Amino acid sequence: MKKIKVAVPATVANLVCGFDILGMALNDPFDIMEIELTDEPIIRIKHTDGFNLPEVTEQNVAGVALQALIADYGKKIGFNVTVCKNIKPGSGLGSSAAGSAGAVVAANFLLDNYYSKPDLVRFAMNGEKLATGVKHADNVAPCIYGGITLVRSVFPLDIISLPSPSLFVTVVHPQIEVKTADARQILRKEVQLKNAIKQWGNIAGLVAGILKNDISLIGRSLEDVIIEPVRSILIPGFDEVKSKSKEAGTLGGGISGSGPSIFMLSENEIIAKEVEQIMINMYNAIGIEFKTYVTTINSQGVKIIDSE
Amino acid sequence: MKKIKVAVPATVANLVCGFDILGMALNDPFDIMEIELTDEPIIRIKHTDGFNLPEVTEQNVAGVALQALIADYGKKIGFNVTVCKNIKPGSGLGSSAAGSAGAVVAANFLLDNYYSKPDLVRFAMNGEKLATGVKHADNVAPCIYGGITLVRSVFPLDIISLPSPSLFVTVVHPQIEVKTADARQILRKEVQLKNAIKQWGNIAGLVAGILKNDISLIGRSLEDVIIEPVRSILIPGFDEVKSKSKEAGTLGGGISGSGPSIFMLSENEIIAKEVEQIMINMYNAIGIEFKTYVTTINSQGVKIIDSE
Repeated sequence: MKKIKVAVPATVANLVCGFDILGMALNDPFDIMEIELTDEPIIRIKHTDGFNLPEVTEQNVAGVALQALIADYGKKIGFNVTVCKNIKPGSGLGSSAAGSAGAVVAANFLLDNYYSKPDLVRFAMNGEKLATGVKHADNVAPCIYGGITLVRSVFPLDIISLPSPSLFVTVVHPQIEVKTADARQILRKEVQLKNAIKQWGNIAGLVAGILKNDISLIGRSLEDVIIEPVRSILIPGFDEVKSKSKEAGTLGGGISGSGPSIFMLSENEIIAKEVEQIMINMYNAIGIEFKTYVTTINSQGVKIIDSE
Repeated sequence: MKKIKVAVPATVANLVCGFDILGMALNDPFDIMEIELTDEPIIRIKHTDGFNLPEVTEQNVAGVALQALIADYGKKIGFNVTVCKNIKPGSGLGSSAAGSAGAVVAANFLLDNYYSKPDLVRFAMNGEKLATGVKHADNVAPCIYGGITLVRSVFPLDIISLPSPSLFVTVVHPQIEVKTADARQILRKEVQLKNAIKQWGNIAGLVAGILKNDISLIGRSLEDVIIEPVRSILIPGFDEVKSKSKEAGTLGGGISGSGPSIFMLSENEIIAKEVEQIMINMYNAIGIEFKTYVTTINSQGVKIIDSE
């Protein structure tokens, strides 16, 4: 196998209360990447998506992730990469993570799965470092593992794969710009102990709910008393979308990653679509361009769709 | 049934990283309580243990818990209670929780299990309020449910029962006084966000480890970066007991509740006993009176041992 085409999922980091530790892969939207293994020590990147992302290896998330992989691999290899992004950069849906994670997973297929998943997360985190300045794993881990992942620790890397409950996910991406670095900067460096205790009660509840497949417990635990009250200010319509979605019967939800996308988890497709309609009405009324998705949890991560 | 005798377990609150939310019941030590149902609206309490605890209903943890139960029950009933405590007050092993939880569970047996477990936790929390000034559930919940419990929220009360891994628990109670109120007061009201994130990563890891029965993950998650660094200062020998126990192969451990007892979790009895020897040597060397236990997790909670 010399050439491979993969579908690379969008991801929702944080999952409401699990700031910096939880993430979930979605079945929609996804990027398409084609990667060819060569014996020239060069990485060539081409974007066919019109997002005007840099194609210079050192400035491209896939480029730096593949550089890290090649440096570790040692032998003289290179890659030709063609990327067609559907996950819009800056959406809060793990667009940069998809770039770096998709590239190294596809490369690893071409190298006969030489590397383990934690290795691939390590390589892909170089892309996150380029995009946000910090080596985070909360988007690359679910992109590579699929389903819901818990990043217990980044140094040393400790990723725990959790089961995927059969829930529906409604996402709206209001097309305003929220820079990850800005969204991080507005957070207070200190939090009240009593709020931290509430938060870790909810995280423990959410993890227990996912592992016990206790949908009601998942719903009760989807509460963020630390990050959301600060970050949601950056997203017009957030509070109303959330409260109306709750009235419509959604389990709960919040900001996807650092925003501006909002996601809601629902037990069935009828509620998920009702939530979508609430989102559509809201952003039509506010007059902000937006895109919505009604999808499910992607339990597999990066998928091969073609190979030669 | 008019009279019942129960064994009421000691409990370890917090479980290292789960401050105020996690707790675990032990098979040893335990209190013995005898409760008789009467049709006089009086609660009579007698201690046979020599700890000089108050026997006046309003000043006794079992007394106030039973008062709350009777007030809710509505009918004209009373109880004669005889308590023989083995869980030393002030040990950090849930002595007050055992008093209130044991009383209401035993009373409920005599009332043909009229109340649910969450009801009993609500009544028993009145004892905690009397003992510590705050309605906490992290000791009474595992005492009533058995095994390991997660108190996601106290108001509204939300308790999640977790499975009991087959681990051995070594406990040392150095007989110094650490008042719960003091141990709470020395905590900072604010914590660094980066430490809170570490902590909730570990809590999520611990809960996942317990539910997946992944002993290595339980061990990796037994880390407390917020409470232990402050409270351990109150316990002479803590750091050395912990580091030597780790060298001996224990999974990990920390302060039981607000101390001064220290507990360690081990995969087998050989390590658990080695840890006990480390504790014995340490407190003999320091010259502090102490008591040790090598036991297992009590998965049942309060047990009936006799009834008439």
